[in-house]
Amino acid sequence: MSKLVGSCIIGQSGGPTSVINASALGAIETALAADCITKVYGAANGIKGVLDDRLYVMDEEDPAELALLRNTPSSALGSCRYKLKDADVDDTDYKRILEIFKKYNVRYFFYNGGNDSMDTCNKISKYMQKSGYECRIMGIPKTIDNDLYGTDHCPGYGSAAKYIATSSMEIYHDARVYDTGMVTILEVMGRNAGWLTAAAYVATYHGQGPDLFYLPEVAFDMQSFLDRAKDIYSRNGKVIVAVSEGVKDKDGVLISNYASKDKAVDAFGHVQMGGLASYLADKVKNMLNVKTRGIEFSLLQRCAAHIASKTDVDEAYMAGKAAVENAINGVTDKMVGYERAVENGRYKCLVKLIDLCDVANTEKKVPLEWILPDGAGLTEKFIEYVTPLIEGEVKIPFENGVPRFARLKKHLAK
Amino acid sequence: MSKLVGSCIIGQSGGPTSVINASALGAIETALAADCITKVYGAANGIKGVLDDRLYVMDEEDPAELALLRNTPSSALGSCRYKLKDADVDDTDYKRILEIFKKYNVRYFFYNGGNDSMDTCNKISKYMQKSGYECRIMGIPKTIDNDLYGTDHCPGYGSAAKYIATSSMEIYHDARVYDTGMVTILEVMGRNAGWLTAAAYVATYHGQGPDLFYLPEVAFDMQSFLDRAKDIYSRNGKVIVAVSEGVKDKDGVLISNYASKDKAVDAFGHVQMGGLASYLADKVKNMLNVKTRGIEFSLLQRCAAHIASKTDVDEAYMAGKAAVENAINGVTDKMVGYERAVENGRYKCLVKLIDLCDVANTEKKVPLEWILPDGAGLTEKFIEYVTPLIEGEVKIPFENGVPRFARLKKHLAK
Repeated sequence: MSKLVGSCIIGQSGGPTSVINASALGAIETALAADCITKVYGAANGIKGVLDDRLYVMDEEDPAELALLRNTPSSALGSCRYKLKDADVDDTDYKRILEIFKKYNVRYFFYNGGNDSMDTCNKISKYMQKSGYECRIMGIPKTIDNDLYGTDHCPGYGSAAKYIATSSMEIYHDARVYDTGMVTILEVMGRNAGWLTAAAYVATYHGQGPDLFYLPEVAFDMQSFLDRAKDIYSRNGKVIVAVSEGVKDKDGVLISNYASKDKAVDAFGHVQMGGLASYLADKVKNMLNVKTRGIEFSLLQRCAAHIASKTDVDEAYMAGKAAVENAINGVTDKMVGYERAVENGRYKCLVKLIDLCDVANTEKKVPLEWILPDGAGLTEKFIEYVTPLIEGEVKIPFENGVPRFARLKKHLAK
Repeated sequence: MSKLVGSCIIGQSGGPTSVINASALGAIETALAADCITKVYGAANGIKGVLDDRLYVMDEEDPAELALLRNTPSSALGSCRYKLKDADVDDTDYKRILEIFKKYNVRYFFYNGGNDSMDTCNKISKYMQKSGYECRIMGIPKTIDNDLYGTDHCPGYGSAAKYIATSSMEIYHDARVYDTGMVTILEVMGRNAGWLTAAAYVATYHGQGPDLFYLPEVAFDMQSFLDRAKDIYSRNGKVIVAVSEGVKDKDGVLISNYASKDKAVDAFGHVQMGGLASYLADKVKNMLNVKTRGIEFSLLQRCAAHIASKTDVDEAYMAGKAAVENAINGVTDKMVGYERAVENGRYKCLVKLIDLCDVANTEKKVPLEWILPDGAGLTEKFIEYVTPLIEGEVKIPFENGVPRFARLKKHLAK
């Protein structure tokens, strides 16, 4: 295998997670230590930073400050949601990327993101090959949604799942302190895949969690939901519901769209709330005349680094490291993925490599056979799947009572 | 001092916090160890449990399970919002309480709550004295709102403040990853006092937090808010605002009430959101035509035991313990309070005793001289005040990736 000498670019893309910076750190530290990598650049706001010639020089960062990236949430280099056109249709962006790669002698490109980012990697790689410019291109996965194809699970999911399971358990305690009725609706992220809402079931499995679970994989039936809520309420006086933002009815219409529609109709009557959680809470309130509360986990579920899963953080770092090591060893056009293994009866996560073209634009959903009917939750199989991913607690550094997150210099390359 | 022998009741009241169970544990463990206390009862749902003769026998709990109360959020015994009538007007409840006290030979009553709970303690104590029934009655404070009179701060505040400061810092990172505009509104609890919203300023003070802060202590001016947001947006492209749910205009009208009013008017136009955060986000969206997001910390801010302040937890335990110790030593009709001291240059919290009748129905707000003009935040004085209260991280037990909270048997006394 020829030893390819040159600089590298690391970029972050798509919605942030609690551990995308841990992957960046794994890649940056490994690249900084590699003889054949002459300079390590971080792209400002993903591929846009390449197009705009805005590259941060990672070699100039204080190593101790860089190390704090392991527990710093969100995308420290900045992110983007930029989609490259097909090179056959318009190759302007590709020409520009090649120009920048040549300018900085970039021979390694690592891109950390979800489906679309793998598509970006794939397109750039094809163009570089066609242009005869030698460059190794690797994808590093990330998404709290856990919906990437070909990998057992995704960096970012374990931490979001741990946050959701823990918060659901805490809310279970809070939402039942009075001896009066109460219905609480928890709205969880997930447009098409219900992995995150399923995580709330972990709290229930351990005795202190929501009663009902609605995932986008199964058509949402309003009457059935109201019947189930009424039944549980009549027995317990308390109901907690976890619902994916992306639940749809049997015709594929988003239930959150009902909220907007009904609002216009009811507007001169009682006050309508926005958002799916509030909408469903309102429906239940009308039926049972009981106190209700809609809670959105919102951004918190993807940036709560203080309650990240240690397993997730460590694996995310490993994914970044593996991308660089493999590229140095001659691998290109692959996404790093996870393979679940068992060692001495314990969960172990191995690295596997997946063709970029296989990953792009394929969604992995919760298997239907893992979902119990009537919103009752998930099967034991799901608990077996998810438990090792949320295990382990991080000990993040605090200063003055608040987390000490990384503060990078971000010197731009000249 | 005569040694008073008999049983005791411990009750929890009002909205729960992350540490009210730590206070309960401090009281229960101290009472269980005391020779003169013959039996330790926990009232189911506060004073309602006394009226309904629903008392849990704490002596029958597994000590190891009880110990988990230290880090279990919410009110493990159940809470209530029951207000006793004046005994002069209607003494039915008081007669019943006396009856129950006699039935179980209750000579010590410990009540853990906010303003109203201290009022309850005070009324019961007066009635018992009038009836010639010897019983020592002590209040233990709790409220995330930090608005109790006569104490430097309140158990529960430090943990809620730590959650809010930490989450605001995490959201700061998340809400600025893209190079596109974004305005985020964080809605924080606090009807009349802005202590919790002020806590978000800790994140800002350390360089990674919201830009604007609106507390109920200062009249909210919509135009001034919009001007400030516009100005910051034009410079940074990002704005984060922390606002108390209880902000009011100069006429004392809740801004959250505007939301309902405007909704009816605008209803056939674009979709209105519910809640103060969404309402303000909508106002900004209309002005700047920028992506906005309203986030409510909701119940999470008062039950996130996993990110509790260790200082708060330890002090809450100490407050429960001090209540029992003082009662055994003959003290009655007092609420345990905190006094701030300095020892070897470091913050120290001492116990003080405050007359119940002084505490009831007096609210402590954020000093106006600590609040900067135009929503700019708080002064250094506030940072000095709050920092020791949020310092220290708890290490709560986890099992299978989620917290292991207390599971009490709750055997009812016969």
